Parts: sequence; structure tokens; C-alpha cells
Amino acid sequence: MKNIAILGSTGSIGQSALAVADAHPDRLSIVGLAAGENAELLAEQIARYQPKTVAMASGAAIDRLCRSGVPGAARAGSGRDGLVAVATAPDVDLVLCASSGTEGLEAVLAAIEHRKTIALANKEVLVMAGGIVTEAARRHGVMILPVDSEHNAIHQCLHGRDTSEIRRLILTASGGPFRGRPASALVDVTAEEALRHPTWRMGRKITIDSATLMNKGLEVIEAHWLFGVRADQIDVVIHPQSVVHSMVELTDGSTIAQLGVTDMRLPIQYAFAYPERWATRLPSLDFDIVRTGRLDFDMPDTSAFPCLRLAYRALDADRSLPVVLNAANEVAVARFLEGSIGFPSIAEIIERAMDAHVPAEVASIASVRAVDDWAREYSREAARGVQLKA
Amino acid sequence: MKNIAILGSTGSIGQSALAVADAHPDRLSIVGLAAGENAELLAEQIARYQPKTVAMASGAAIDRLCRSGVPGAARAGSGRDGLVAVATAPDVDLVLCASSGTEGLEAVLAAIEHRKTIALANKEVLVMAGGIVTEAARRHGVMILPVDSEHNAIHQCLHGRDTSEIRRLILTASGGPFRGRPASALVDVTAEEALRHPTWRMGRKITIDSATLMNKGLEVIEAHWLFGVRADQIDVVIHPQSVVHSMVELTDGSTIAQLGVTDMRLPIQYAFAYPERWATRLPSLDFDIVRTGRLDFDMPDTSAFPCLRLAYRALDADRSLPVVLNAANEVAVARFLEGSIGFPSIAEIIERAMDAHVPAEVASIASVRAVDDWAREYSREAARGVQLKA
Repeated sequence: MKNIAILGSTGSIGQSALAVADAHPDRLSIVGLAAGENAELLAEQIARYQPKTVAMASGAAIDRLCRSGVPGAARAGSGRDGLVAVATAPDVDLVLCASSGTEGLEAVLAAIEHRKTIALANKEVLVMAGGIVTEAARRHGVMILPVDSEHNAIHQCLHGRDTSEIRRLILTASGGPFRGRPASALVDVTAEEALRHPTWRMGRKITIDSATLMNKGLEVIEAHWLFGVRADQIDVVIHPQSVVHSMVELTDGSTIAQLGVTDMRLPIQYAFAYPERWATRLPSLDFDIVRTGRLDFDMPDTSAFPCLRLAYRALDADRSLPVVLNAANEVAVARFLEGSIGFPSIAEIIERAMDAHVPAEVASIASVRAVDDWAREYSREAARGVQLKA
Repeated sequence: MKNIAILGSTGSIGQSALAVADAHPDRLSIVGLAAGENAELLAEQIARYQPKTVAMASGAAIDRLCRSGVPGAARAGSGRDGLVAVATAPDVDLVLCASSGTEGLEAVLAAIEHRKTIALANKEVLVMAGGIVTEAARRHGVMILPVDSEHNAIHQCLHGRDTSEIRRLILTASGGPFRGRPASALVDVTAEEALRHPTWRMGRKITIDSATLMNKGLEVIEAHWLFGVRADQIDVVIHPQSVVHSMVELTDGSTIAQLGVTDMRLPIQYAFAYPERWATRLPSLDFDIVRTGRLDFDMPDTSAFPCLRLAYRALDADRSLPVVLNAANEVAVARFLEGSIGFPSIAEIIERAMDAHVPAEVASIASVRAVDDWAREYSREAARGVQLKA
């Protein structure tokens, strides 16, 4: 029996993870749950899975949880300390970090120090603090199993091969809802249009990141830390069907790819089962391949989608720059979702923050948080400037 | 240093294997060479690689070899005994079996008994005697590394995964030069047309087998023996670009594929290097994927290409039936290449031989050879009947 703690249990990945646990009651036990603000759904999950440790983002959320009458709600932790408590409880074997944004960083580090296996669905943790987190994992002999479908695909392609066998990684990208449009056709797109992802059903923030290709940019940075390869060894290929989840080209020129249906239960279960592999009733690929009859590939258009270029720049230039990229992106995407800035302004605000940033050492979480705070403040100001102009 | 013996050194695979050896003089040494009738080329190879053991198919061929003035030619072995001598010489570490047809069977078995690693490029060995050969390999703890691009791809996809993780194997097929044509359009095709393979440059017999899809049928049988899966776990998908060399669907629904350029040096080097992987300067896949921009997939048409259906029937029905399938195919393809029978008659002759066959035990090489002899004789008669009708 593997004991699982889920950070972000009410989100899209969290709910899929609970579905995986439902399918394997003899193998998986849910012992910890942490959610943001959705007290109603968390109350249902607590009643069903009876976790020993629970946390929510804020005191106000815990108050709502208490009012639901779920037993033990008053003992729930809050904020980053609450996440740390769920992630480090003694009986936890594996922590799934699926919380959104940067909140999970301290909890992941603490879990690594307590030698918990990490299943990582949250990109920000490695984008912000990849050096710190991977070094801690190495020191404590802890495995970080990627749940993001692209990195999970690469993990499956490598399957224990040494990273010295890698010539390059090829991350596939659906291209999002605006694939093929030139920059000039993206000026007036709305949040509603950007939220219509063609192949994957995901949360709102990551869906906008898919539309800007920033999601792929964050994945490039994540891949650098997970697999120890340089930026120039990571390529992005547009593949609208999302059947090939990613590929690894090996030193002899041979390429290994992982293909599958677009269902997050697959990579989540892979991480929960690893190093085993458990059967599912998920459909075979026949349907997709033979129905469409083809898989398309194309190069990304970084003039229409400059966020991808910015991510490469952040990875190449300085270790504090990815923190700025990520923070500015979070602020800008929030403003776009509110309708207060246009789609092209997302990249503009990020680029402006990166230009204004004075590179800093990020050897500690405190220094990461300091850069993050600065970049958020700067980007909020920049967004206000964009609004005033509009 | 790995000491290599090559059975079939003057053929297409043999020459590619020597090119691989040329690229790795510090890692590979050629210690044995065997060829069929091409004494001129073998003489050049002997002069260059100075193998300790040499063989040719016939005494007449050895006479020609002697006349070339190559030192030691008179000591060359002939026939199946010659192949066995090359394959079992004491200093040989790995035997590449790339001889055409069924001649290599005894040599492969003898090499296994002498605990030589086998790199297998010859399909007939496993099609005729898969049970005997794989059981011998298991008993002697010998690895059989497939060199055929499809099985090599599957070996790379599995990469040490247990075969219990396999849901099914998906062998890709280019579809050959007649892909998409209905049966009615195949009546009058010539050997010359059939020899124009769209993606792979190979020997004549295997190129015709590609045109009839018998090559894929033989691969289905080979995959059964190599990977221990049932016929109903092996699917064939037409993929005209030959970029995806084959795929493995695992029990959770995830599919792993191997992709690469169509250059046999890649799978040959993989087998020579295994379990290592050596860098090459072979080009990346960018060119193919981005140039064509797409990979197509379709189901095979077994009414136009009945040989594939016949191979499944042979595998399902009885262990002696694949011997009949293979022998009848060799006879029929030879007749087609001579121009004495039409393209559809290849499948007709094979099916007639299979229908006429009384299933027999094939627990020994002698019993395999007996079935093989019967099927060849029957098929020669059947081919004469077809000619008389025409």
C-alpha cells in the first residue's frame, strides 16, 4: 500500500489523482489532502477519503470547511505551513504536488528533506527553484517523477537510460487554440476564446499558458532541471493532435516517443505506480490514429508567440530570470483573464519585467521569494500602465 | 573490443554491418565472414578485414575465391558446415546472421550453443524454428538482438521492460510500392515495379516481400517468438513514411514508439553496441518530420495483400505451418522475379501449400527441414501449374 498526500486535491489534476486512487483501492491510500479555497469540494473529499492531515490556503477557507461539519476540520493547517504539514506527515510515501502557482515550493522541499517521493504536476516549483529542488533531491536520494504529460512522456522514453544517452529532447505542443494565427490576428482575442483548448481539459491559468505557448516555455525550463540537459538540447515541435506527448532523441540518432490518449490519469498513475506499471481500461490509440489517419508536426512561430522565446532567454541567461518570467506571467495572465489587458500584453509585460530585472543569486528559497515579490510588483505596475494606455 | 562474425557479409545488411565496424575500429573487430556466391566482393572484404574464419555457399564459389589470390581462401568452409564454423569460432563474441533464406538456421543454433550473442537480421530463422531457437537461447542464457528495423524498434521501446507490461505490439509497414491499390490493379504488375520500394533500400527477395506484405507477415511471426506475445497481441499499421519503425502499447494504455531515419546502420550498431549506445553522426529526424510535416497511418488491406492474412493464419494454427508459409513464399517469389508467375499467384501458391499441408511436430531442425523440403517441392509443382494455365 502506497500512502499518498495530494497538494491541490480540488483542482483538475487533484481530482484525476483521486480517480486513480479510486481505481486502485488495494494499492493506494489517500492520507493527506490540501486545497486552496474550494472548501465544499474538499469537505466531500475528506468525508470520502478520511485523510489524517488536511490543509487549505487561508483561515477563511478553513472557516468554511468547519461550517461544512466535516470532522477534524478545525485541525486543518493553513497557508504554506499547512502544505508543509500535509507533505511531511510521517505516514506519507509520495507527495503529489498539484497546487497551482508557487505556493507548493516550501512543501516540496520539506517533503524531499523527509525523503518522500515527489510526483510533480506543478511547473512553477522547478521553474522558480529548479537548482535548489533538484540538488535537495539528489542529496536525499529522492525521486522526482514528472506528471506533466510531456515530462512524463520523456521519463517513460528514457526508462532508466542514462541522461548521457540524450542528444536532445523534443517537447510537443498542441499549439493551443490560436495555432497558425499571425501576431496581427491575436490583438483582440478574448479570454473566453483563449480558454477553448483544442485537446486537453485543464485549469484556467495553464490553458492561457497553452494559448501563449508560455506553458511550453515553462516546460523547457522544467525539462532542463528534470533531465539535466542544456537549453540548446531542448526543442519544441507543434503537434496539434497531442497524440505524441514528447520524444527523446538519443546519441545514435534513434528517437523514442511516448504516445497516448489525452487523459491525465495516465501520467498520474504512472507516477503513483512507478517503478511498477499497472493495467488500466483506458482505450488504445487505434481510435485516434486511424480516425484521423495522421499526425502533424510543425515548427513553433515565436513571432506570434514570443513567450516561448522569452522562456529560452530566461533559461540561458541567469538563474533568477526564470523566477521573473514565471511571476510576471502569473500576474499578466490574471490580468488577461480579468479582461483588463489584451493577449499580446502578456508577453510584453513579461519581457519588460525581464529587461528591468537585475540578475541575482537564487541559492535559497528566501532569495527566490524576494525576486518573485519584486517581479510581481513590477508586473502589476506594468499592467496598470498597459491599462492606462488602452 | 567485441569480435564479430558476419553471416551474409556481401549482402545489403552485411555491407552496412562492415560500415558500422569501420566507424568503430576501437570497439569492433571482424573475425569471421561468410558469403553466398559473391566471391569477388568477399575477396575484397577478406583483404581488408583479415578474418580468421571464412565460408561461402558452395565449392564453386570457393574456387572463384581461390582464384582471386586472397591468402587463406583454400581454408574457407562451404555450405551449412562452413556457416557453422564461422559462427562458432572460439574468439567470436557476436554473430550477425544476415544470410538470406533458411541457410543460417544451423549456424545460429550452433552459435547459441557456443554462447555467442546473436544479432538477427534474418527472419527465416525464427519463422522456421522460433520455438527451437528461442528455447535454446533461454537454456544457454544467450541474447537474441533483433536487427530488423521493426523488431529493433520494439527492443528499444521495451528497453528492459518486462514483457508482462505489453498490451500489444504495433508493427509499422510502409505498405510497399503498391500501397492503396486494390487487388484488381495488382494482376499485371511486374517484378521491376515491385522492386521499387518507396523508403528502404534492401535485397530483392525482401523487397518483393514488402510489396506483398509477406515481409510484415514474417515479422509478425518473428515478433511472436522474440517478445513472447500472442498473434492477437500483434497489430500491423500502414505508415508510408517509415519514420515510426514500430510501437509497443503497454498495459496502462501508454504507447512507446521508436522513430528514426531509414538507415540499417542504426539497428545494426544498436545490436553491436548493446547494452551500450554509441553516438553516430546520423542526421536527426527534423528533416523528415518538418519537411513532410506529417506522419500517416492506415489499416492494411488484406484483400489486396492476402499474404499478411496467411501469416496470421500460419502463426495461429500450427507450428509447422509457418515453415510451409516461408518455403512456399521463397519459391513463389523466385518464380515471380523470373517473370514466370504473376504477382497475385505468390499468395495463391502459398495458400495452396498451406491448405495441402498436414501439420507436423517441428521439435528438431531435421523435422523443420523435412517440412521445408515438402513445401518447396509442392510449391514448385503449384508454380508450374500456374504457368501452364497462364
